[in-house]
Amino acid sequence: MAKKNPPLRIIPLGGLDGIGKNMTVVECGQDMVLIDAGLMFPDDSQPGIDLVLPDYTYVLENEDKLRGIIVTHGHEDHTGALPYLLQDLNNKVPIFSSKLTLGFIEGKLAEFRIRSPKFREVKSGSHINLGCISVDFFSMTHSIPGALGVYIKSPQGTVMHTGDFKLDQTPIDGVTPDYAAISRFAKQGVDLLLSDSTNATVPGFTKSEAEVGPTLNEVIKNAPGRVFVASFSSHIHRLQQICNAAKASGRKIVVTGRSMLTNTRVARELGYLTIDESDIIDAYDVNGIPDDQIVVMCTGSQGEPLSALSRMANGEHKTLSIHSGDTVIISATPVPGNEKAVQQVINSLAKLGCTVVDKSTKLVHVSGHGSQEELKLMLTMAKPTYFMPVHGEAVHLRAHAKLARKVGIPEDHIFVLDNGDTLEVRGGVVKVGPTVESGIVYVDGLRIGDTDPIVLRDRQKLANDGMVTVVAVVSMKKKRIDAIDFSTRGVSFSIDEEFGADAEDAIRKAVDKGSFDFTSSSTGALRKVVRDALSNFIWNRTRTRPMIIPVVMEV
Amino acid sequence: MAKKNPPLRIIPLGGLDGIGKNMTVVECGQDMVLIDAGLMFPDDSQPGIDLVLPDYTYVLENEDKLRGIIVTHGHEDHTGALPYLLQDLNNKVPIFSSKLTLGFIEGKLAEFRIRSPKFREVKSGSHINLGCISVDFFSMTHSIPGALGVYIKSPQGTVMHTGDFKLDQTPIDGVTPDYAAISRFAKQGVDLLLSDSTNATVPGFTKSEAEVGPTLNEVIKNAPGRVFVASFSSHIHRLQQICNAAKASGRKIVVTGRSMLTNTRVARELGYLTIDESDIIDAYDVNGIPDDQIVVMCTGSQGEPLSALSRMANGEHKTLSIHSGDTVIISATPVPGNEKAVQQVINSLAKLGCTVVDKSTKLVHVSGHGSQEELKLMLTMAKPTYFMPVHGEAVHLRAHAKLARKVGIPEDHIFVLDNGDTLEVRGGVVKVGPTVESGIVYVDGLRIGDTDPIVLRDRQKLANDGMVTVVAVVSMKKKRIDAIDFSTRGVSFSIDEEFGADAEDAIRKAVDKGSFDFTSSSTGALRKVVRDALSNFIWNRTRTRPMIIPVVMEV
Repeated sequence: MAKKNPPLRIIPLGGLDGIGKNMTVVECGQDMVLIDAGLMFPDDSQPGIDLVLPDYTYVLENEDKLRGIIVTHGHEDHTGALPYLLQDLNNKVPIFSSKLTLGFIEGKLAEFRIRSPKFREVKSGSHINLGCISVDFFSMTHSIPGALGVYIKSPQGTVMHTGDFKLDQTPIDGVTPDYAAISRFAKQGVDLLLSDSTNATVPGFTKSEAEVGPTLNEVIKNAPGRVFVASFSSHIHRLQQICNAAKASGRKIVVTGRSMLTNTRVARELGYLTIDESDIIDAYDVNGIPDDQIVVMCTGSQGEPLSALSRMANGEHKTLSIHSGDTVIISATPVPGNEKAVQQVINSLAKLGCTVVDKSTKLVHVSGHGSQEELKLMLTMAKPTYFMPVHGEAVHLRAHAKLARKVGIPEDHIFVLDNGDTLEVRGGVVKVGPTVESGIVYVDGLRIGDTDPIVLRDRQKLANDGMVTVVAVVSMKKKRIDAIDFSTRGVSFSIDEEFGADAEDAIRKAVDKGSFDFTSSSTGALRKVVRDALSNFIWNRTRTRPMIIPVVMEV
Repeated sequence: MAKKNPPLRIIPLGGLDGIGKNMTVVECGQDMVLIDAGLMFPDDSQPGIDLVLPDYTYVLENEDKLRGIIVTHGHEDHTGALPYLLQDLNNKVPIFSSKLTLGFIEGKLAEFRIRSPKFREVKSGSHINLGCISVDFFSMTHSIPGALGVYIKSPQGTVMHTGDFKLDQTPIDGVTPDYAAISRFAKQGVDLLLSDSTNATVPGFTKSEAEVGPTLNEVIKNAPGRVFVASFSSHIHRLQQICNAAKASGRKIVVTGRSMLTNTRVARELGYLTIDESDIIDAYDVNGIPDDQIVVMCTGSQGEPLSALSRMANGEHKTLSIHSGDTVIISATPVPGNEKAVQQVINSLAKLGCTVVDKSTKLVHVSGHGSQEELKLMLTMAKPTYFMPVHGEAVHLRAHAKLARKVGIPEDHIFVLDNGDTLEVRGGVVKVGPTVESGIVYVDGLRIGDTDPIVLRDRQKLANDGMVTVVAVVSMKKKRIDAIDFSTRGVSFSIDEEFGADAEDAIRKAVDKGSFDFTSSSTGALRKVVRDALSNFIWNRTRTRPMIIPVVMEV
């Protein structure tokens, strides 16, 4: 019977161990749909890693079933794994999303030379069938236009996935969440709800994006000199409000920073961002214009060292500079881990003598994620029988589960899972199923794969303690060490003549004690003796333990 | 005349480039006093560094003038450089501070085996003469008891230094700021005020420490299981309130974490912390006692991986463990840069199923530094003619300067300086003087000194890209490379047989092209060719650029 009536399976491959790399498999029998394919940026414990992707082995192994990829919105934690995934798939799979999301994805794929992807534009109200799985799309509000939620129907049950959302009654583009659709689907029945948990620990109701506008207007209007506004380049609503404020105070708009230039171009082309051609000027043409007639819209809200804002703050920008009397608005919040980098930029700006406005002093930023009241409202509107919080760290998922209990969902109908766990829906009843392969995959240069944890541990050790290479040239004939050479990097001492002679002495003594026969088979043991002797010598002399790389060369 | 009447000089050696390593020289003719000797903890850009100290060369060079060291309170950013400084001084210099501060310093010096320091206990109202410089002490409130401000008189002028402070009308020990003394000194005249800028960007008035008590009471009283409270171990007022709350709900107190054990012992011995012997139990004896009768006071509020809280959260603590149903209170705020580490601990705790309470949800922490209203109040009480904001990052010093302008201090009477700049007071008139040697000194293992910036750059490069050691054994007789060997650490590729053969090939080709004469004088050039050839080979093959350490050995 199980074979005849396969369950609807929900498999989160990412998004349950942190905010990022969202990816959820929806599978029913011989049909599979993927919701989102995002990346995460590495943290301090992953030095040198470029990007972190979810392990999507399960998707590749079931490619024959894959009917389509649904992307809820255009943020990189929902789209960033696409270039890698598409390259790994044998066939062209259709990608369903809103016009703006597809526009942003197109640019990213072009960087990877992925030509003519199978884009299928959908919008709120669209209905598609992907095998036995049908998908209805409904609009949601978020810190990017074109955000969609989905309602999934299958022979075994129904699932609603909110995507990332807040409930904004006064969105800048007028596209509110489609409450009517949500209520309609609720009436049809939502067996399982998957809902964004990012702000599940934040009490209250997230402020509307529209509330930022008056503050931007006021600050820009009253600023004596140039105004620089750093923001996320995909936050088109915010950019629209910045442009509106600039226009209202008779200022021209200058755009700088690679992603800011790209995203404003795409958003304007697709009709999501409205700037009169006469209101925008090139950075090269800025010099004739009085300071109080300029607003610069730039990247760098996260303190990224190579961003436009950092370069301008440090006097290293090609065309633009910031001076005493200018105003800088940080119209964003630091992503956890970036606080110190942002503070450094703010200090650099303070030293230049300009005024820095950020959300700690004025309402120049609001979150794109719903707070506790919105999350409860979503739960009571969707009326799900079962609930799985998604998109969050452990603490957020559990806080969201607590909210669900508050609105009356029984404890045993709430699933706080890990990536790779599965839920199985049979006749509307949801149970935990077997786990599938999952995990994280690092992108490090050209290499995409499971970077050995030892590599990351070695990198941290190298960063903390530096390294010493010791080369011992060994004469097999004479049965002795002919020469020893040291090279160091990143250590606080230097190996001068005396240090080197003493270290060599310590090594030779240790080798003599070891009574090696100097055959090829003893090289490994010899290497270990050399390493240990040098490590102990350095510890005694300096109280540091750099990584020792022993090389034994036979001649 | 300048020789006959030397100016009073104020020289900040630390504390103006960030929050930490506070140290200020006060010098008049042949007499010199040092205010505070603090350290700073390294950040991400200083990998492997243990501690950061201010460069106190100026103090050592003028040791013959040094009459005493005044320590305003017992936090490490005011005391932590003392062990190093005292070891570097030839003579025993008296250290003046409150009983608790000296108690904390004594423990720290003992770790460094610094015996019988010249401690001179002072309190609010104490007056001392150090050569031609006299110092009056007055009590201030801060997140540690025994905090003092100082009023300095000299033949050329007067200076008030607030130390770190908030203005708390309901401090836990009843010792309010000595407003009467501040007003008296103001009447005598304050030529120059130095005031704490840490919270100069925060509007309003910092809440009293006493306001935390009711929340702690409520959370601890209503908690179903054990309660763990992580806090700064020097925050004796907070610890007292935690102990009071524990007692009020009939719970025993367990103390864990090295500094928590040390500081509670010292504070109890000196009469700053009151816990009945019968209310405190050893961690080993906790097992017989019901969960709802226990409060654990622990270190780890900053997410430090080796702290008691982290160990308990990860199930690695010797004697204590945290379970589902327990409550953890983070009664502190993350120091900038620690946000992510704290969040990680919170996630681990959430996974254990316990309730985490921090300042984002309940009033379980207040700052120890005064906000804008307090800073303005301090300025209007002290009525200084000149003002120098201290203890802060660039943005805080400038925000504090702005507050000073608001309360009527003229722009040209406000000095926003850098470490090593000096102010000279002559007949009550303050001017900027010549700069002195200053900077930062790293403690890295046994070595204390100016760690080469190249060392830190190398460490970051090693962390990001890993390294490859290439050893080329060169025969001078045969004029060729005899053998090549590779070792890697921290790279995402491995040098297998094929990779190694190709790399060797690339190196040999590059060497052949170089037409070296294989004399000792060409070794440097040969090393460069080997390095560049390998670096390019690896880039082409992997798109990564590990650090290459080339070793050329002649045989």
